[in-house]
Amino acid sequence: MPESIRDAALACKLAAQAVAELDSHAKTALLDDIANELAANATAILAANADDLAAARQAGATPAFLDRLALDPQRLRDLVKGIRAIARMPDPVGRVTRRRRARKGFVIERVRVPLGVVALIYEARPNVTADAAALCLKAGNGVILRGGSEAVRSNRAIAGCLHRALARAGLPRHAVLLLDQDRAAMLELLQLSDIVDLAIPRGGEGLIRFVTEHARVPVIKHYKGVCHLYVDAAADFDHAIELAIDGKCSRPAACNAIETLLVHAGAAPAFLPRAAAALRARGVELVGDEGARALVPDMPAATEADYAAEYLALKLAVRVVEDVDAAIAHIRKFGSDHTEVIATEDAETADHFVHALRAAVVMVNASSRFSDGGELGLGAEIGISTTRLHAYGPMGAEALTIERFVLRGHGEVRHPESRTHTPS
Amino acid sequence: MPESIRDAALACKLAAQAVAELDSHAKTALLDDIANELAANATAILAANADDLAAARQAGATPAFLDRLALDPQRLRDLVKGIRAIARMPDPVGRVTRRRRARKGFVIERVRVPLGVVALIYEARPNVTADAAALCLKAGNGVILRGGSEAVRSNRAIAGCLHRALARAGLPRHAVLLLDQDRAAMLELLQLSDIVDLAIPRGGEGLIRFVTEHARVPVIKHYKGVCHLYVDAAADFDHAIELAIDGKCSRPAACNAIETLLVHAGAAPAFLPRAAAALRARGVELVGDEGARALVPDMPAATEADYAAEYLALKLAVRVVEDVDAAIAHIRKFGSDHTEVIATEDAETADHFVHALRAAVVMVNASSRFSDGGELGLGAEIGISTTRLHAYGPMGAEALTIERFVLRGHGEVRHPESRTHTPS
Repeated sequence: MPESIRDAALACKLAAQAVAELDSHAKTALLDDIANELAANATAILAANADDLAAARQAGATPAFLDRLALDPQRLRDLVKGIRAIARMPDPVGRVTRRRRARKGFVIERVRVPLGVVALIYEARPNVTADAAALCLKAGNGVILRGGSEAVRSNRAIAGCLHRALARAGLPRHAVLLLDQDRAAMLELLQLSDIVDLAIPRGGEGLIRFVTEHARVPVIKHYKGVCHLYVDAAADFDHAIELAIDGKCSRPAACNAIETLLVHAGAAPAFLPRAAAALRARGVELVGDEGARALVPDMPAATEADYAAEYLALKLAVRVVEDVDAAIAHIRKFGSDHTEVIATEDAETADHFVHALRAAVVMVNASSRFSDGGELGLGAEIGISTTRLHAYGPMGAEALTIERFVLRGHGEVRHPESRTHTPS
Repeated sequence: MPESIRDAALACKLAAQAVAELDSHAKTALLDDIANELAANATAILAANADDLAAARQAGATPAFLDRLALDPQRLRDLVKGIRAIARMPDPVGRVTRRRRARKGFVIERVRVPLGVVALIYEARPNVTADAAALCLKAGNGVILRGGSEAVRSNRAIAGCLHRALARAGLPRHAVLLLDQDRAAMLELLQLSDIVDLAIPRGGEGLIRFVTEHARVPVIKHYKGVCHLYVDAAADFDHAIELAIDGKCSRPAACNAIETLLVHAGAAPAFLPRAAAALRARGVELVGDEGARALVPDMPAATEADYAAEYLALKLAVRVVEDVDAAIAHIRKFGSDHTEVIATEDAETADHFVHALRAAVVMVNASSRFSDGGELGLGAEIGISTTRLHAYGPMGAEALTIERFVLRGHGEVRHPESRTHTPS
């Protein structure tokens, strides 16, 4: 008889308690063992992945879909390397972030503890299965993985490795629970507010909307990235062109790629023709407003839909704006609170841009593509939150923990009358 | 024509942007002006409150309900004093919590920004109206207040003061939005996921359950406190008795009062009769398990329901447990992740208790009644979160902000090929 979703999730919650009690050393050893197990089972994992790929191809999956689904020896080596890197990262659990002595004598500490059970709901990306499990375990959590059904064989092969490593560490296999049932099972999972501490949906807007609509458990959204580069009148134009190229071309399908280039009207005549030529030389298709089209030949008009779009492709919308405030107004209207960039050598304008925008990541004179857990020093990331709650921006292991209070005293009471009992 | 909930909330979101841009000095001045305005309008506020009280009395409200609803000159003075204290607290917004230079040269900062719009849903407690608004404004947020309808006249009088102070500061009145419509309006509010960044329900289990069930916006729950005091074999019994008295008697209706006393079997014969006598001398009704009843005369048997109850009254359940692990198991089963206390002079046992339990606040040799924003150094609190996400335990102004990333560079790009454009 198959286990019910509730029973399985409850087993994960119990297992999470055992994970929470592991010390840093034990967690490092567990993650190293997971890395070893994945490396040792590369052939089986790749064979399972080949079956997933064949089935997806037969079902008419797009090349982009197949690319996300595909593992190969190099990707698997990178995955193993990534897990070893997570193993080496500082342990967020037990970290004392603040300590103070109260007037009354006791000492108050803020200490990080695991969240408990984290549910990750994602698409057919088998690398996420191993990555997310490693980050959750590092942070002392149990994890429920519900990946896209097209990756079911790859995910099972990877989960097998995770379970063997857990077993060798004397931990219950339910610490990593792979759910490969249907959407009804996912729906059931999202109702378990007494078990699941956090659900993280990662994927297209449809998936995220579905999870948000139906969840009774807390959700941190990882929405689309409509990121902007604003080139100020006081920008270094060479740098700004490089930021545009890096932001658009280095990985167009990434959520931290730029989708719109905003250019100060004073900078546009000198900057825009050069930038457009450099971008077009790399195959970028440009659309623009009237101001931009007056400076760049053969550029189709941009619509409101263009400014709202996350192209995820070599396409860029361009708009000439009157000043930094017009750029800010545009970003407030069309931005997705993911990552915004200003190119300027004027410190005051930079500060104004930083303070006026509440995006998770704001960059001054640096590429939007640095908006990534690895690049920002988190070691690895479970995703990029655009929810302004708990975590905002790239989420590493620390974002899978929470600060609580620990108070150590010497019998202090709040009301002096509590002292007046009969002494022994 | 009355404003729609959505339009009003949207106006609050826009107003919140203006609040977010205030510097620390302006916020202090605003809060001081609010305090002055409340003090200057004490007579009108108390008259409105007297009308609320009369109506509630006529409707048959309980004494406890009337007590929460009631303001008097002293309570109003305390409220004003509290707002002046919030004004003097350090500003959490703009605080740089971490700074590092990446290998690539840019500097990464973690900086606190306001959440945006916070909705507070609470019962008929007019002091919360002023308190919550002050804390939200301090943290640079807009706030939507939906208090119990029985306090409508008091809340309107207080909101009037808030609005006059906002107007004098040149801020839109919608920065503090008082919703005194019916439950349907609250339902509509809880759907506005593009406007409301956080909903905090404060009150009885029914209210919290209603909000959690219906919200499409993020919710931080402030559930009941089933707090325990565990007296270890190695406890200082005099201290432990004082902790029991303070925890139960200093304010029985508070959520940080203790509801169950767990006593190590080795300590029980010496400790329990004395503790029971001291508690009974203060009017505490005791119920207990077999082990406790064997040591204390005339104590009725405790049921499972007793161990799960938040009495909020001078009643205490008592249980003799074999050791600290049995105490931990009891708390894991019946605790509400609010506040747990151990009395022991044995450091190892204390550490084991602290690590094994994941309550928001864990105390060693100090009263559960210190689980309070003021006592823990937060200055004031908007509530006590038992949700293990974003904030856990007492929430002050800082918990109404979120850390984001600010990166300052010199034109750094992620991929070196982005540099190879035609130079000027």
